[in-house]
Amino acid sequence: MSNISDWMRFKSQSVADELVEINARQFLRENISGFGMKGRVVELLGELKAALFPSLYEREMENADYLSSQVLDRLNTATRLLNGIIKDVLMNKCQLEKKGSCHGAECAQRADTMTVEFMESLGEIRRMLTQDIKAAYEGDPAALYTEEILLSYPSVEAVSVYRMAHQLFVMGLPLVPRIMTEYAHQLTGIDIHPGAQIGEHFFIDHGTGVVIGETCVIGKNVKLYQGVTLGAKSFELDENGNPIKGVKRHPNIEDNVVIYAGATILGGDVTVGHDSVIGGNVWLLSSVPPYTKVYNATPKPIINTMAGDGEQE
Amino acid sequence: MSNISDWMRFKSQSVADELVEINARQFLRENISGFGMKGRVVELLGELKAALFPSLYEREMENADYLSSQVLDRLNTATRLLNGIIKDVLMNKCQLEKKGSCHGAECAQRADTMTVEFMESLGEIRRMLTQDIKAAYEGDPAALYTEEILLSYPSVEAVSVYRMAHQLFVMGLPLVPRIMTEYAHQLTGIDIHPGAQIGEHFFIDHGTGVVIGETCVIGKNVKLYQGVTLGAKSFELDENGNPIKGVKRHPNIEDNVVIYAGATILGGDVTVGHDSVIGGNVWLLSSVPPYTKVYNATPKPIINTMAGDGEQE
Amino acid sequence: MSNISDWMRFKSQSVADELVEINARQFLRENISGFGMKGRVVELLGELKAALFPSLYEREMENADYLSSQVLDRLNTATRLLNGIIKDVLMNKCQLEKKGSCHGAECAQRADTMTVEFMESLGEIRRMLTQDIKAAYEGDPAALYTEEILLSYPSVEAVSVYRMAHQLFVMGLPLVPRIMTEYAHQLTGIDIHPGAQIGEHFFIDHGTGVVIGETCVIGKNVKLYQGVTLGAKSFELDENGNPIKGVKRHPNIEDNVVIYAGATILGGDVTVGHDSVIGGNVWLLSSVPPYTKVYNATPKPIINTMAGDGEQE
Repeated sequence: MSNISDWMRFKSQSVADELVEINARQFLRENISGFGMKGRVVELLGELKAALFPSLYEREMENADYLSSQVLDRLNTATRLLNGIIKDVLMNKCQLEKKGSCHGAECAQRADTMTVEFMESLGEIRRMLTQDIKAAYEGDPAALYTEEILLSYPSVEAVSVYRMAHQLFVMGLPLVPRIMTEYAHQLTGIDIHPGAQIGEHFFIDHGTGVVIGETCVIGKNVKLYQGVTLGAKSFELDENGNPIKGVKRHPNIEDNVVIYAGATILGGDVTVGHDSVIGGNVWLLSSVPPYTKVYNATPKPIINTMAGDGEQE
Repeated sequence: MSNISDWMRFKSQSVADELVEINARQFLRENISGFGMKGRVVELLGELKAALFPSLYEREMENADYLSSQVLDRLNTATRLLNGIIKDVLMNKCQLEKKGSCHGAECAQRADTMTVEFMESLGEIRRMLTQDIKAAYEGDPAALYTEEILLSYPSVEAVSVYRMAHQLFVMGLPLVPRIMTEYAHQLTGIDIHPGAQIGEHFFIDHGTGVVIGETCVIGKNVKLYQGVTLGAKSFELDENGNPIKGVKRHPNIEDNVVIYAGATILGGDVTVGHDSVIGGNVWLLSSVPPYTKVYNATPKPIINTMAGDGEQE
Repeated sequence: MSNISDWMRFKSQSVADELVEINARQFLRENISGFGMKGRVVELLGELKAALFPSLYEREMENADYLSSQVLDRLNTATRLLNGIIKDVLMNKCQLEKKGSCHGAECAQRADTMTVEFMESLGEIRRMLTQDIKAAYEGDPAALYTEEILLSYPSVEAVSVYRMAHQLFVMGLPLVPRIMTEYAHQLTGIDIHPGAQIGEHFFIDHGTGVVIGETCVIGKNVKLYQGVTLGAKSFELDENGNPIKGVKRHPNIEDNVVIYAGATILGGDVTVGHDSVIGGNVWLLSSVPPYTKVYNATPKPIINTMAGDGEQE
């Protein structure tokens, strides 16, 4: 008998017990989401995206009635999945807070109300996405068809998921909205916190490396390029050295602002006035008035024959 | 009966109808790609990548004949998938342009020709990729085996897909090449427009955040690092405020150029001469002659004891 | 009969033969990993991550015993997969080095030892990840629950995979550790070389675009933000123009250092002293002592009414 068979027969149980014990200490005892929540949320997103954009996700469309029945199926599946997710999260949270004395009926009732409210918001979310897609088409000379935006722009993926997650965030559902936008971050490199407020006709070109913090407020008709950070300055710690949660930490961007690649705007007390343009790589820590153009002094790169070092591998 | 069951029985149909109607307005009426095109293109790419790099995608290889039969299977599946995709896209486009009077035969004939032309270009594409993989090996001290490049470098994924998408772009196929490179962008963080022209022996190290615009022309033996943008300056709008499409907007990079991390080179009238080196974070808006080294003045960071703010969260 | 059927019947075989021949030249003859290694490694990672974090990957948990049996299953499956992978890689490498005279027994024995050693290290790896998750919670005001970190922070994904890959790298297994961290790079935009040494209580916020090079040495309680590069200066070439492998090329970061977004630190002779803070976008090519704060002079962006160019599309 090989070493390996022996190890699996006689030793792996103790590693399993060790892993279970470590997990129990950090997560299993005070667990709001229960098991497998990430997978459940990803499954839900699949159904919701298919309901919003059937031409992307369905393979056949014989006629309008058939299409409508496909969308109806997606919506009903999403309703069931979302209702289960909300119920589990609310009841687990309630059990923890009431130390086990949650009877469930009130939480279940609240979950039903939230589920219906969310599902009925999908039409409005889809209308906003229509504007977002138009913004992309108007903002990129490389796009020849509106359809091209839908089929291939990461902004559509990231902003669709953000708009749904934001709705759930506003309704007060914990954990789930963040799982949603982080899933979109994984697909697109665009990291939008579900708490951010973003107006209509919004477009992010290319997108990789964009970060939009929790307490950002972004107006209508704003355009961002790759690598833009709308972040926080250094944050306050409480007496235990933990960061204080829930403070306004991220900037306000008013209507019709364009922010070019790699710009960094930091701080909850910073407002970029409407119709302004922030140039590439600008590092901005204070407010600017409307109709302002902010750009770095043109750097004078040193131009030389071959020598020197300092390059990155 | 629960709220939720009631909602699904009596209300969700109206949300479905609303979503179908919004989709009909923006996409379904003037739809070139038809339904499910993104999934079809991803499936096609799976077959093509397996044909190009069988050791990556096949799990067994008994002998050379068996390998050849696996590659043949992949090629024939890809041929069928690609032919269906091209046919649908060309005919839908023709129907739209001729307002429904496309009879299909000419489009089908053109689709067949394009399919065969593409499939016969795969040998040449694979030969170029051999050079690209050598470029990676020669360009990274961390790579101990050429095989390591194939197994783990995102540059191989991004450039393989780009070279195939570029071939279809040059042949005039709309929409599909862009879906292909955006899929590679999702996997790698490297965003290469299929219209860009890139010479042989090309390597992108690390890669996250790289953007290469539609009208870039890149020579042979060029190396890029993560976060490099080869982009456009602000673009012209037409009388309706829409960007004018099809103008040369992105730079030319000649042979043997190295561009370090985070450098940004913008504009269709900018040429980086051959055998030049562009340093990290350089912001370049004008041409430089051959054999030039461009780098930022060494910044003098302010070094201090602990105090101050301005940091990003 | 269509062009396409004809082509598949009479011509595609020659393209298949061409592709097989090109692959044979570059990879098949001197192949260490064999076929399908990438897929095998991804499958292994799935089992290992489920064993480390069962609440993420299992959908049901009736009681503690059932959970333990699920983890045991995952561990045993991972053991079998890892053992097969290590055996194949060691034996293929040995065959190549001994030109076919490897008899296998010694390699198999070594593979068994490495497999057991790795599996027994999982408890310690999981304990380190507990600290890493605490570091994330303490480092981000947006995180309301520790559980939120586990469910949605890319740092957990990237660092979990890195800690496992590093263990295999230290044990001397070629190729596989790099495939592992590159898979995490694909999911998170965080590119950590498995050779890097990283102390406990480590956190990367947002993460997209982070690069940590092979010979970095990072202390305890370090925090990085998105877009940080810990890289190499330009490297030495040997007499054939190939980079010299195995040299210390990347910086040392001591305990309790924070490095903000977009900072770039390059060179094997650079040490950032403990308890230092490196500001956003700093470009650092030399060492700094402990308790130092390094930041760029506040740039004075030029603020203007609307005019000018130089923006990126």
